[in-house]
Amino acid sequence: MAKIAVLGYGTVGSGVVEVLDTNKESIKKRAGKEIEVKSVLDLRDFPGDPIQEKIVHNIDDIINDPEIEVVVEVMGGIEPAFTFVKRALEAGKSVCTSNKALVAEHGPELLEMAKQRSLNFMFEASVGGGIPIIRPLNQSLTADEITKITGILNGTTNYILTKMDREGSSYEDTLKEAQELGYAERNPEADVEGYDACRKIAILTSLAYGSTVKFEEIRTEGISRITAADFKYAEKLGFVVKLLATSCKKDDKVYAITAPFMINSSHPLYNVNDVLNGIYIHGNVIGNVMFFGAGAGKLPTASAVVADIVDCVKHKGKNVMTVWSAKKLELGDADDEIRRFFVRVKGEPSDLAAVESAFGKVEPVTVEGINGEFGFVTEAMPEREFAQAAEKIDMIYRIRIDDTTI
Amino acid sequence: MAKIAVLGYGTVGSGVVEVLDTNKESIKKRAGKEIEVKSVLDLRDFPGDPIQEKIVHNIDDIINDPEIEVVVEVMGGIEPAFTFVKRALEAGKSVCTSNKALVAEHGPELLEMAKQRSLNFMFEASVGGGIPIIRPLNQSLTADEITKITGILNGTTNYILTKMDREGSSYEDTLKEAQELGYAERNPEADVEGYDACRKIAILTSLAYGSTVKFEEIRTEGISRITAADFKYAEKLGFVVKLLATSCKKDDKVYAITAPFMINSSHPLYNVNDVLNGIYIHGNVIGNVMFFGAGAGKLPTASAVVADIVDCVKHKGKNVMTVWSAKKLELGDADDEIRRFFVRVKGEPSDLAAVESAFGKVEPVTVEGINGEFGFVTEAMPEREFAQAAEKIDMIYRIRIDDTTI
Repeated sequence: MAKIAVLGYGTVGSGVVEVLDTNKESIKKRAGKEIEVKSVLDLRDFPGDPIQEKIVHNIDDIINDPEIEVVVEVMGGIEPAFTFVKRALEAGKSVCTSNKALVAEHGPELLEMAKQRSLNFMFEASVGGGIPIIRPLNQSLTADEITKITGILNGTTNYILTKMDREGSSYEDTLKEAQELGYAERNPEADVEGYDACRKIAILTSLAYGSTVKFEEIRTEGISRITAADFKYAEKLGFVVKLLATSCKKDDKVYAITAPFMINSSHPLYNVNDVLNGIYIHGNVIGNVMFFGAGAGKLPTASAVVADIVDCVKHKGKNVMTVWSAKKLELGDADDEIRRFFVRVKGEPSDLAAVESAFGKVEPVTVEGINGEFGFVTEAMPEREFAQAAEKIDMIYRIRIDDTTI
Repeated sequence: MAKIAVLGYGTVGSGVVEVLDTNKESIKKRAGKEIEVKSVLDLRDFPGDPIQEKIVHNIDDIINDPEIEVVVEVMGGIEPAFTFVKRALEAGKSVCTSNKALVAEHGPELLEMAKQRSLNFMFEASVGGGIPIIRPLNQSLTADEITKITGILNGTTNYILTKMDREGSSYEDTLKEAQELGYAERNPEADVEGYDACRKIAILTSLAYGSTVKFEEIRTEGISRITAADFKYAEKLGFVVKLLATSCKKDDKVYAITAPFMINSSHPLYNVNDVLNGIYIHGNVIGNVMFFGAGAGKLPTASAVVADIVDCVKHKGKNVMTVWSAKKLELGDADDEIRRFFVRVKGEPSDLAAVESAFGKVEPVTVEGINGEFGFVTEAMPEREFAQAAEKIDMIYRIRIDDTTI
């Protein structure tokens, strides 16, 4: 019997308790012993709910309980999660978390603390919800030098963009609908401005290259400026718009960006719709691999947390090695990245003089019902050069293009 | 420094040596120490090739070498691979293999031998080539009860079917072309008759449920009877034809089959084309997850083998637990499985009497240029009932339909 404690009885926390109960028998077989939730930390009480008898309000009741060998942190946010996790590790307990903010901010420090104590700090659920991606990166793609990681890593924004694409609706209306359905938070900033996806690509990139990517240094752009008009142009050009979080290694430099991109039907992530997440990885020997599935949601996320709990129980007394060190990974200059851009510009498509003097020959694209402007696609060029050329035209908006093909 | 031996210097064996050399530095970081190929067993000599100095012709030179801690079996076939692997384990060496025939036939016995000696027997490359699937099933999806596994697990047949679909060519011509390109063996039976895919789904199903599926007991049908005409009907109906290897759990019974299926564009494996493999898994809490990538090829397969070598080196002296036991898993009766069927029948679509007396009301489908016959799609029905009804009509051929949606 392995006893565990859960910090936070919210959506994921209650999901963890539910999954451990629902699949009790098969989990016992996988872990080699039964796993029992002994304590659940929450400020609230849950009168009438069977969980009530396990509820504790003081973290000390868990830290000081020698029977508890794994602590599951599913509260979210940096504090008090960070303090609680450190205290758990100091007390000789392994920790599993779904908290990407905590992992992106303090991952290597907590991994090192766990390693020094022959414990484990696991965070499969922090990226891609239920999709197994942390463990494959850590343990399966070990023969490869990873050259590219591209993910649709945020379900909320993917839901909004899929809906805008299918229904031609505005960003504002679609966000409102997503909020009503519970797919977007009342304060949606972390999702729609790309901060959530940015932290996730920072984690994946750090794991792939073994040193720490500071998420604050990743160029990050959200979807809040995407309009129904952009989707009309995209459709005409055979593209869809997706929020991609991507990093790649070129000439020993690692580049990363989180931003809306246009992708076409031969892109590996073209069919990843609704709240699904998808992650595409290119390795120098394995070639392309793709993982996709539910990137969020109570049970898929709980599934990933429970898989970590099983792994901690199986590896009691033995640290599962990762290569992620605290050493900072210096990102390459995002302005050096070369790609095509889709551009919307004010004016008539018959008068290309200004545009062509800035970008060379272009093919104007117009869309029925949208007047006084037109679109075009640039040649592949560095972001720096694009920004310089764009200053010379009356640009409305631009969306990057990702030309990766499977 | 960890020293290893490779049994067989063919495509995969030379790939393993190449990957260990190409990614030497990153592999050292991942494994925690350098990995060196000390010996390579092959009957041949390779004069002039740097590998020659490592070539040995006698397995005893490897078994009796106390420095060698991991043996990599990439010879293929049951014997002498089985004997060599047993001897390696008996001599205290962990084993990695890409040999699906060996794993499907003797997996649980070899896993048990490894376990008793605190060694490891790993076989990530035996299914899905480079795609990480064995380790995710073993270690990531441990919180779930797996309810369905469906894979496109054979690159040769997927290449042939993709080509027939795109070019309208015959099975015979396409097979010949695939043979000329090296995508199909001169004796293609193991691939085209589904035996290879059948062994792979037997392995995945055994791992998912923890007891042994005898591959001989899986209903298996190949692609050699698929014609250009079938693809014309499929196109008209919005389907493609894929060789699926699939198992599912219903009411505590596990069912498995390998056969050509028609699938439509909302099926998770619809876009898995050419030599790519794709594996779709449904778990009761995680929902749907999909993995895809290169299912074969020298370097992708070697990438999976080397990841196993790294894992063996990292877990020296400690068995990585699996739940696959030698206990036999009794499969449910394949005749009880319920699905729709696409049927081609001789006659004119104006005369539906015989067909409708056997199958109830049907919607006939005709294809330009194919005369004297028509097609139709049945309601969902057990295989047994379908077979009985089919005897009453002048059937040309039938293809099962898999209605799974993402």
